[in-house]
Amino acid sequence: MTGLRGYFPPRTATGAASLIPSPPWHYSGDLLTVEYRTDPARVRELLPEPLEPAAEDPGAVALIWADWQSCAAGGRELLDPVLSQYKEAFAVVRCAYRGRTYSRCVYIWVDKDFAIARGLQQGYPKKFGSIHQTRPHPYGPAPRIGPGARFGATLAAADRRLAQAVVTLREPSGTGGFVNGHPMAHHRRLPSIENGKGPALDELIESGAASFEGGQPWVGDAELELFDAPTEELARLEVREPIAAYYRQVGVVWDGGRLLESGTSGGQ
Amino acid sequence: MTGLRGYFPPRTATGAASLIPSPPWHYSGDLLTVEYRTDPARVRELLPEPLEPAAEDPGAVALIWADWQSCAAGGRELLDPVLSQYKEAFAVVRCAYRGRTYSRCVYIWVDKDFAIARGLQQGYPKKFGSIHQTRPHPYGPAPRIGPGARFGATLAAADRRLAQAVVTLREPSGTGGFVNGHPMAHHRRLPSIENGKGPALDELIESGAASFEGGQPWVGDAELELFDAPTEELARLEVREPIAAYYRQVGVVWDGGRLLESGTSGGQ
Amino acid sequence: MTGLRGYFPPRTATGAASLIPSPPWHYSGDLLTVEYRTDPARVRELLPEPLEPAAEDPGAVALIWADWQSCAAGGRELLDPVLSQYKEAFAVVRCAYRGRTYSRCVYIWVDKDFAIARGLQQGYPKKFGSIHQTRPHPYGPAPRIGPGARFGATLAAADRRLAQAVVTLREPSGTGGFVNGHPMAHHRRLPSIENGKGPALDELIESGAASFEGGQPWVGDAELELFDAPTEELARLEVREPIAAYYRQVGVVWDGGRLLESGTSGGQ
Amino acid sequence: MTGLRGYFPPRTATGAASLIPSPPWHYSGDLLTVEYRTDPARVRELLPEPLEPAAEDPGAVALIWADWQSCAAGGRELLDPVLSQYKEAFAVVRCAYRGRTYSRCVYIWVDKDFAIARGLQQGYPKKFGSIHQTRPHPYGPAPRIGPGARFGATLAAADRRLAQAVVTLREPSGTGGFVNGHPMAHHRRLPSIENGKGPALDELIESGAASFEGGQPWVGDAELELFDAPTEELARLEVREPIAAYYRQVGVVWDGGRLLESGTSGGQ
Repeated sequence: MTGLRGYFPPRTATGAASLIPSPPWHYSGDLLTVEYRTDPARVRELLPEPLEPAAEDPGAVALIWADWQSCAAGGRELLDPVLSQYKEAFAVVRCAYRGRTYSRCVYIWVDKDFAIARGLQQGYPKKFGSIHQTRPHPYGPAPRIGPGARFGATLAAADRRLAQAVVTLREPSGTGGFVNGHPMAHHRRLPSIENGKGPALDELIESGAASFEGGQPWVGDAELELFDAPTEELARLEVREPIAAYYRQVGVVWDGGRLLESGTSGGQ
Repeated sequence: MTGLRGYFPPRTATGAASLIPSPPWHYSGDLLTVEYRTDPARVRELLPEPLEPAAEDPGAVALIWADWQSCAAGGRELLDPVLSQYKEAFAVVRCAYRGRTYSRCVYIWVDKDFAIARGLQQGYPKKFGSIHQTRPHPYGPAPRIGPGARFGATLAAADRRLAQAVVTLREPSGTGGFVNGHPMAHHRRLPSIENGKGPALDELIESGAASFEGGQPWVGDAELELFDAPTEELARLEVREPIAAYYRQVGVVWDGGRLLESGTSGGQ
Repeated sequence: MTGLRGYFPPRTATGAASLIPSPPWHYSGDLLTVEYRTDPARVRELLPEPLEPAAEDPGAVALIWADWQSCAAGGRELLDPVLSQYKEAFAVVRCAYRGRTYSRCVYIWVDKDFAIARGLQQGYPKKFGSIHQTRPHPYGPAPRIGPGARFGATLAAADRRLAQAVVTLREPSGTGGFVNGHPMAHHRRLPSIENGKGPALDELIESGAASFEGGQPWVGDAELELFDAPTEELARLEVREPIAAYYRQVGVVWDGGRLLESGTSGGQ
Repeated sequence: MTGLRGYFPPRTATGAASLIPSPPWHYSGDLLTVEYRTDPARVRELLPEPLEPAAEDPGAVALIWADWQSCAAGGRELLDPVLSQYKEAFAVVRCAYRGRTYSRCVYIWVDKDFAIARGLQQGYPKKFGSIHQTRPHPYGPAPRIGPGARFGATLAAADRRLAQAVVTLREPSGTGGFVNGHPMAHHRRLPSIENGKGPALDELIESGAASFEGGQPWVGDAELELFDAPTEELARLEVREPIAAYYRQVGVVWDGGRLLESGTSGGQ
């Protein structure tokens, strides 16, 4: 009866069953980003104290589709790709904390359990969804990356479509967007096992890429539709004004973050 | 910028998007339980200090399939059943803590995200799986509950079959099994966001049904097969000696638990 | 190089890989039926010659959810329930052929491949969908069958919700509905492999249950919503007037049908 | 009551609900091909008269994974990618008919209903499966196409893994393999609706790409494992001797085929 091994439950004598291995986590992926402005009050209402709205353009939102292959050190998951491939769609806003601007994921849907577990560690509020995005391809009817290339992207959860976008590329860009470009300020929170008590875990953490490489970003325009659903609030971030849309291929490493503060989000 | 609402992430101004509502949680379900003995050392190696092996029959294991409909107070989820129905398969052992016998779920697979979230709260080490079990039916080829009725049950994860059982009922029983009959002693644990530090959350909690009702249990025999997989360890709980198998329909309410102790499971 | 075996492709030396075994096919299931009247012209436009609208109540539609366990002779599939369980939702209208009234399934969605294959044989125009319906249960929050019992039923395809209903039972009934109560008049049709030629297969067939047993039907009311989707036309059968809703458990055997005529549906 | 429209069921007044549009069908995809030799008798037993074994290398098998984006003329499906993207794994052998060599798909699994429908038209014996293959990527841990690049590929159906391969690329190649390089000789077959009668449709057809473009093929070696399952026979095509493995990106158009003969495959 020594200690158990494994970065995450289920923890065992060997650690082999852990839902996720310890970081660093490595990612290859294609990002389709749609940036727009919503009512800044709709962003503000998603920012618990001590977070504040971003000083500039506080109503900016990025809705991002990502098609990932991921693995831990060693990369074994890449050769059994049901363990490495997943897709996600997520909404990012910006906020300020102690005078610094952060990005913050307010909604996210993924299609694999290991991605949900990583999100728990990183403070992403993950749910399950069905996510699709057009992939560029050098042959046949799928788009080549270039002026006029069109990509579709859709998100559904609980058998309802929540969002769909069509992105048309225009030209190379110096950036892949600005909303998701800061370190993330996320909460990690779990209610007490005892009803009526404050949360057992309540952390504000900072996290970001330990390293990043990326191809040429392309910029263009998007038609974006958001749909209501009884257990979702993405559509509250209604589209007031389009900003731009981006396509980019990236490689990312995530290797932990930093505790900003603890015990301040309030509530049960 | 007041506090956010919602029992679970994503937390919002209204709380409507929370992946799960606050307890109590209500369940209607069919349980198919296969009990057997494995090498007690294989159970012991899954029990972190201060848990100890059960004093009697320490190698007993229950592998349980459950077909659930669940909801919070109000029951709205029952009328949009993609939000209430889920299936699970889980392995339970017994252990002792401060002289009392507990049940403990060591592996569990479910097929919905809200079930994963509830498991985080309750300390079940949930992964995603594909779970199937034969349902009794009063007409046609499916079994009536009675002597000789046969039920199949299967579990797969990551595109590999992990377990399959065929249960044949023999007679009514005074019990639905003994391995899963105690309060649960579970860990709730999340690594630190900062690499190299001890866990951010590390609780040993006690939890069980706030109320329970159940139909007549039936007992019989099972043929059970467990299969190896690279990221699973269920098959380490190898079948040494069958005990019995049970079928029972139940109604359960879960409404929180109790913190036993904190910060003792060790490791990162 | 003798002949291959197997009722359906893939056909092999042993026949074991056939997607479906030969009939008779046996079914145990729960049916949730919502009957309503639509514009009779919307029904008529789905009836190719020589089919004619039903003489009475030609705008009647039944939208039926079914939760099945099914098998061929021997019943082996019941013990590996991923091979026997499936769910479906389908729209049925009535028509007349040579003076006799028939039922006809105009749209149907299922969630397993073997169900699609059976539909090809039986002339059901099956697509894939995600189908859910509340199941009655004797314990916990799920409904007991009885006055006031409420059942939800939903249908989605291609990540869009197509239909949802809430059925409230009122009382026992002498019938489970009238729209799906006749033999089925279905087309079996496959285009020519050569572009521009008429269909390679073009049959009007009659088919129905070889035997049937059923429990007490219950009748009540339904709230039904249909939703548009780019590649679906179910919502064209718009709800003009509710008729009734039914719940019933049944056992059915299907064992082939009869060719009515061939080569008359027209078109490519 | 004029004729109905639509290339495939369900046929309607507008044709919009047809599960698949009429050809030509356009495809962009990545192919991972593993070629090996099995016992020629195992190939021969899958060839119904009048097909004969290929004169040379009659035990050659190609097991091919493909990751597709597909559409009809207009390409609308590409912008709602749940309607265009699918994956498949299929086993191809060669045969001879009237002195000419053909390729023939003997087993195939896909993950979308529209792909099943196309297979019915083309004579592919499609089932549902879960298919994964590593995708090359210019950044992060996923492989770049080049010497030493490693790709995993897996296939599961009915919650059981059926095949898995790891392919390691070595060098550019003049070919992407030879087993799947001929026109396809396929059967299209549907049993009679009347039990005991011969098939309602029984065609031997020839079909192939109407046009094809492809990138540089790469050749390498594969480790391939096949697994038994109760309702599958892929593993009968056991690996006796590896030939080679290939990676290639392609664009393909399919636009119908030609009837070779009818009514000769025998059986019910």
